[in-house]
Amino acid sequence: MNFNDNDTLRNIPRTYTGSKKIYVEGSRPDLRVSMREVSISPTRKTNGTIEENSPITLYDTSGPYTDPEYTIDLQKGLPRLRETWIKERRDTTATEKGFLKAKDGANVSQMHYARNGVITPEMEYAAIRENMSRELLWKKGYPKFLRSGLPTFITPEFIRSEIAAGRAILPANINHPETEPMVIGKNFLVKVNANIGNSAIASSIEGEVAKLVRAIYFGADTVMDLSTGKNIHETREWILRNSPVPIGTVPLYQALEKVNGRVEQLSWEIYRETLIEQAEQGVDYFTIHAGLRLAHIPLTANRLTGIVSRGGSIMAHWSLLGHRENFLYTHFEEILQILKAYDIAVSLGDGLRPGSIYDASDDAQYAELETLGELLKLSWKHDVQAMIEGPGHVPLNLIEENMTKELEICEEAPFYTLGPLPIDISPGYDHIASAIGAAQIGALGTSMLCYVTPKEHLGLPNEEDVKQGMIVYKIAAHAADVAKGHPRATLRDHALSKARFEFRWEDQFHLAIDPDTAKAYHDETLPQEPAKAAHFCSMCGPKFCSMKITEELKEYARNHGVDDRKAIDIGMKEQAEKFASAGSLYL
Amino acid sequence: MNFNDNDTLRNIPRTYTGSKKIYVEGSRPDLRVSMREVSISPTRKTNGTIEENSPITLYDTSGPYTDPEYTIDLQKGLPRLRETWIKERRDTTATEKGFLKAKDGANVSQMHYARNGVITPEMEYAAIRENMSRELLWKKGYPKFLRSGLPTFITPEFIRSEIAAGRAILPANINHPETEPMVIGKNFLVKVNANIGNSAIASSIEGEVAKLVRAIYFGADTVMDLSTGKNIHETREWILRNSPVPIGTVPLYQALEKVNGRVEQLSWEIYRETLIEQAEQGVDYFTIHAGLRLAHIPLTANRLTGIVSRGGSIMAHWSLLGHRENFLYTHFEEILQILKAYDIAVSLGDGLRPGSIYDASDDAQYAELETLGELLKLSWKHDVQAMIEGPGHVPLNLIEENMTKELEICEEAPFYTLGPLPIDISPGYDHIASAIGAAQIGALGTSMLCYVTPKEHLGLPNEEDVKQGMIVYKIAAHAADVAKGHPRATLRDHALSKARFEFRWEDQFHLAIDPDTAKAYHDETLPQEPAKAAHFCSMCGPKFCSMKITEELKEYARNHGVDDRKAIDIGMKEQAEKFASAGSLYL
Repeated sequence: MNFNDNDTLRNIPRTYTGSKKIYVEGSRPDLRVSMREVSISPTRKTNGTIEENSPITLYDTSGPYTDPEYTIDLQKGLPRLRETWIKERRDTTATEKGFLKAKDGANVSQMHYARNGVITPEMEYAAIRENMSRELLWKKGYPKFLRSGLPTFITPEFIRSEIAAGRAILPANINHPETEPMVIGKNFLVKVNANIGNSAIASSIEGEVAKLVRAIYFGADTVMDLSTGKNIHETREWILRNSPVPIGTVPLYQALEKVNGRVEQLSWEIYRETLIEQAEQGVDYFTIHAGLRLAHIPLTANRLTGIVSRGGSIMAHWSLLGHRENFLYTHFEEILQILKAYDIAVSLGDGLRPGSIYDASDDAQYAELETLGELLKLSWKHDVQAMIEGPGHVPLNLIEENMTKELEICEEAPFYTLGPLPIDISPGYDHIASAIGAAQIGALGTSMLCYVTPKEHLGLPNEEDVKQGMIVYKIAAHAADVAKGHPRATLRDHALSKARFEFRWEDQFHLAIDPDTAKAYHDETLPQEPAKAAHFCSMCGPKFCSMKITEELKEYARNHGVDDRKAIDIGMKEQAEKFASAGSLYL
Repeated sequence: MNFNDNDTLRNIPRTYTGSKKIYVEGSRPDLRVSMREVSISPTRKTNGTIEENSPITLYDTSGPYTDPEYTIDLQKGLPRLRETWIKERRDTTATEKGFLKAKDGANVSQMHYARNGVITPEMEYAAIRENMSRELLWKKGYPKFLRSGLPTFITPEFIRSEIAAGRAILPANINHPETEPMVIGKNFLVKVNANIGNSAIASSIEGEVAKLVRAIYFGADTVMDLSTGKNIHETREWILRNSPVPIGTVPLYQALEKVNGRVEQLSWEIYRETLIEQAEQGVDYFTIHAGLRLAHIPLTANRLTGIVSRGGSIMAHWSLLGHRENFLYTHFEEILQILKAYDIAVSLGDGLRPGSIYDASDDAQYAELETLGELLKLSWKHDVQAMIEGPGHVPLNLIEENMTKELEICEEAPFYTLGPLPIDISPGYDHIASAIGAAQIGALGTSMLCYVTPKEHLGLPNEEDVKQGMIVYKIAAHAADVAKGHPRATLRDHALSKARFEFRWEDQFHLAIDPDTAKAYHDETLPQEPAKAAHFCSMCGPKFCSMKITEELKEYARNHGVDDRKAIDIGMKEQAEKFASAGSLYL
């Protein structure tokens, strides 16, 4: 396999317009947290004075790809950021084939360290990242206009305690040292996962690597490789070596490929071999459909859309073939033994998630959720990091019930939902419809949202679909963060509002989720360069701008030393005279 | 002005793929309610039997434009559907210029009729329309799989009682007989308004007519003409004569144009003259910013983004110029005298709506809401139909508070919100971000959602933006309807789910919000015609389809007469043997 890097990544910019890459150093020189800094231009007041605005730091998932100093080499893969940290712990050993594995009897999971009171460099990295600055670890103050409900800053110790309690996970396979550590949990920023992967019908390895880099450019916190077609192993290898974000898979798909799609030939042995193969490659979390028990299957008989989870239907089929219990359930503790030897998190799959609004929140779904709760406790018994997958299709009136049940049954373990889609009539726009559900469930406590692309229910996403899915899901996650009062999310939001009010067009674009699109739309109506500095917008035109009027009203108040309400009320008569003598502000 | 109709409407199809126009007759032959019927192909079971599926009727806002029998003539305008109904009431008289007006002392508002126990043809039309069939007025039964929380059918009498109570409005100016009557209220389908209109910088009359027709093709229930540029009167005339949906305006914009944008020259007299001019043309509802009182203005002094409502900032400016009370407030009862003579509904504008998340739900906003509550009661005193406008920018955690306050202060009068946008960092995607807020507030009881287009905050929407804004807002409204349990919304949803499960691809497309886009996306991966009949999708490929497996599991159960859970559990062993002997289903 030989890629032309430039060609593969042709659609992916090396920078964000208006931003620069920065690194914030932690407690050791090799702990440098990648971030994105947006410089903000000063406020030019109508009276001629100038007020500086602080730059805004943003969470950055794009890894070295947006570092202009870094030479991309997909063959070589990314720098092995965590290699030293893993080695320093002296609890791993190399296998014959050169992969890392826990020493006999050792448990190398971040949860195990956390429960033993150890703050790892990974935890410190994730903490600095959540704050989007190192400074905030030590300073408690935020600009006073923030209305925060969350802890005002995240310490490494807080990360440790959340992981120890099972309320958060930090997926970081010891064979994936390229990962930039991140944390998933209800007390942190809401994360977004992007699904990529080929099928028997479409896609190339090169195309999947491009989707990976495109997804993280637009903010994917983790990426799942759901390939089911050819070259599953090799595709995954390219993805892992070039991914700065944790990679998840559904190992069952590859296991089934190994028996040429013949479900009756699936076995625990083949599955186990697949788990180890992927563990050695460095997969950071596995979706495992162990909660779908034989006894649950009849609960789906009256569904409108049966079992729609791919993993779920494979295991249901396998169970029915021999009227036997799901081998993922019966071998679950053996699975956990493997996971803790590599620090792979388990994502407890919802094989019985509803496939339509009609089937939402039915007995089958909730029966499986109870089993996921059991399996979660087994995982915690082995100090294996775990999260819970959720639906799927849920009308808006049932979203709160879904969240509440998960928090209760699964003791606040991170919830990881696909959407949910609150309607079924939007094929072609399911990314948008599902973002409505995702934002709502995120605001209520879901830790990670699995994106949906415009092609959902219709076909496999291409690179552009990945971009659209990501943007819409970053909107949903940000809406949830703002609702939860995350200080840094709110700060960015307010900074853009202020730029908008002050007609700093370029700052507005640079702070936007997709700067280039925002600028292009603006330029459609007002393409001239001076328009970017103009104190009006194309909606109202130069004579007729509400923002402009208010700005002048406020400016007047400021110049007269009135900045509280009463004073302005007193000052209004004077102001009235001034306005009347000066004529309209519109001219 | 001379349009080439074909050229003006070149982007607007004359039909919906897979649907036909139908008319459902009410209690009189000239009461024919326009609807859209989607024919559904039969279910072909794996055992060879065929099961017919009933066609699905959809709410249709597109008017005569999608009737193949109708010859479009923009110069001539649409048929005057309500002309006879209005004349029959014998309470109007023609002015010198030929416009209709209530006879002296008469009140021609639908609310006035409703309160006098009269069910008008308009109310009956709206009732049949809400049910999407006449039959449902007489039959109470729905397919048993519907889970409805709302009245199972809407009678004309229910419409009358809701209008009488002020919980619903039916905007229908006697000079706009082209309107197909529709109802806005919390116990009905959630409606969507589309804003169009030129500015000093962009747009032509022809372009605005095209936007109107495009908006209703994609489901706009009402359209607001917010023109502020040239030819305001003429543009509106073309829009009204060619619009089958109610048209709203903000008369203040034209009043300000009449004084060349000089706020200090604005006066009650000029405003009053404008109201009458627009009343005679046929505008169905006016946004009036009468709730912004002089005493409220200082409450905005500490805002991050001041006053962003265009109407609000004009009136604030006018008030400050003379330190005087808003003339819309002081003359409000005179305004109502005009409105009831034409049956124009008042949309009480929120001139102090927040312009950012930072300013959301502040004292200024709620102070104005209290005044809107007062003005509402004044409107009801005159039997003038009224709704309440709402924000704007609201984080997800404050949406319920906004809805609750409106219902309380404004006694369940229809709430009409712009979005709300739950974040500020999505310029270019604000239609999507705001749909997240809109769906949520719709599910909680908002009656009409004002769409937002991708150009919000950046420029004026073009025809394609109108389409995108509409589609996204129809998704939000449908999500709200499904959450509220509207039977017809749920029925369409379930019909699509069933088609999806049964691999009836064409039916899926035809039931989708945007059939052509859904089909195009599907064709990108599987373009061949046979693929539309194939029992698999491109996501999994032919060997590996979860829907296919479940279908076969269910089919098996059906063939063995097992359709309840227990029977299937008993039958599973037999099934297991069959599966084992037949080999994998995947091959």
